[in-house]
Amino acid sequence: MSEQQPPKIIDQQWLTHSKLFHVEQLDLAFSNGEQRRYERLNPGRHAGVMVLPILDNHSLILIKEFGAGIDQYYLSFPKGAVDSGEDILDAGLRELQEEAGFAAKRLTPLKQISLSPSYMGNQMQYIVAEDLYPSALPGDEPEPLEVIHWPLSEIDQLALHPQFIESYGLAGLALLRAHLSAGKK
Amino acid sequence: MSEQQPPKIIDQQWLTHSKLFHVEQLDLAFSNGEQRRYERLNPGRHAGVMVLPILDNHSLILIKEFGAGIDQYYLSFPKGAVDSGEDILDAGLRELQEEAGFAAKRLTPLKQISLSPSYMGNQMQYIVAEDLYPSALPGDEPEPLEVIHWPLSEIDQLALHPQFIESYGLAGLALLRAHLSAGKK
Repeated sequence: MSEQQPPKIIDQQWLTHSKLFHVEQLDLAFSNGEQRRYERLNPGRHAGVMVLPILDNHSLILIKEFGAGIDQYYLSFPKGAVDSGEDILDAGLRELQEEAGFAAKRLTPLKQISLSPSYMGNQMQYIVAEDLYPSALPGDEPEPLEVIHWPLSEIDQLALHPQFIESYGLAGLALLRAHLSAGKK
Repeated sequence: MSEQQPPKIIDQQWLTHSKLFHVEQLDLAFSNGEQRRYERLNPGRHAGVMVLPILDNHSLILIKEFGAGIDQYYLSFPKGAVDSGEDILDAGLRELQEEAGFAAKRLTPLKQISLSPSYMGNQMQYIVAEDLYPSALPGDEPEPLEVIHWPLSEIDQLALHPQFIESYGLAGLALLRAHLSAGKK
C-alpha cells in the first residue's frame, strides 16, 4: 500500500453542541487540489471501552439492554465510557462489574477502533477479560441488565443472532477470534 | 432469554439539526418506574450499505480512504448511503462500482445492523458480492480511492491490521466468517 499525502484542514468551526453530541464543520484540501466540506461528530473524544469476558474458557458473557437509538432490546458485551483520568483497564474492570457482576484476574488489551472514521471521532478500546469471579458494583442503569452466557464454540451463531446487531459487538467478535487463533499458534 | 417490557416514550423533542446530524431528546419511563433522559442521533434514518466483495473465491476487495473523523487514512469495505427510493442491492452494486471498480453477478444480503443502538438510529445492511468483473462508475470521492486485494485466508490478520479500525468493517468480518462457515455445512 502506498503512503498517501493527507488532506490539509483549511477551515474548521463548531456547528452545534448538545450534552452528548458535538458537531464540527471541516473544510479539507486534498493533495490533488480538490476541496470538500465535511461534518464530523465528537472529534478527539475520550475512548470508550468494551470488555470481551470469557468465563471458564467456555462461555462469553453478554448483556441485554434497551437501545434508545432503535427502540429495541439488543445483545452486546459490557461497555461504557472511560471516566476522565481513569486507566483504561480499570474502566473495563469497572464496567464488567457494574453491568455483568463479574471481575477478572486477567485483562488483555486488544485494539482501539473507531466507530465511524469518516465522520465521527468516537473510539473504542477492546479488552479480553479472563479468570472471572463474581463481583458486582452498582451501575447507573435504569433497570437491571440481563446477563447471558453464550458458548464460545458458537461465535458464528452469535454473529447471525437477530438481537446481536451492534457494530461494536460484532467487531468484538472479529477481534476475539483473531486473538484466540493467535493464542493457539 | 426473557421478554422484557420495553420502556415507554413520555416526551421527545428535536434538539438540533445539521446537514448530517439530527439530535433528538427522549424521555423514557421503564417498566420498573425509573425514568431517564436520553439523547439520540439520526433516529429512523435510511440504511447505509456495506459490500463484502470476494474476488475469485480468493481475495477480499478493500478500500483505503481518508477518515475526516479521525484525521487518518483507514481500510474498510466499499460502502455508502442508500439513495431515497433506491433498492438496497442496487445501492450495494453502485457503491461497489464507484469505489472499487467492480460489478458482481451474485449479491447476497446478509444482515442489517446498528451503528450504536444505545444512542444512534443509523443502520447498515451487509451484502456479499461474488462473481466480480471490472466495471467502474464515477463516484463523488475527492481523490481516487486505493483498492487493495486481501487474501481471504488472512481474515484474522486483517482484523488486527492497524489501519483496519472501522467498527463497520470489523463487524463485516464477523458476518462474512459466519456466512462462509454456514456455506460449508
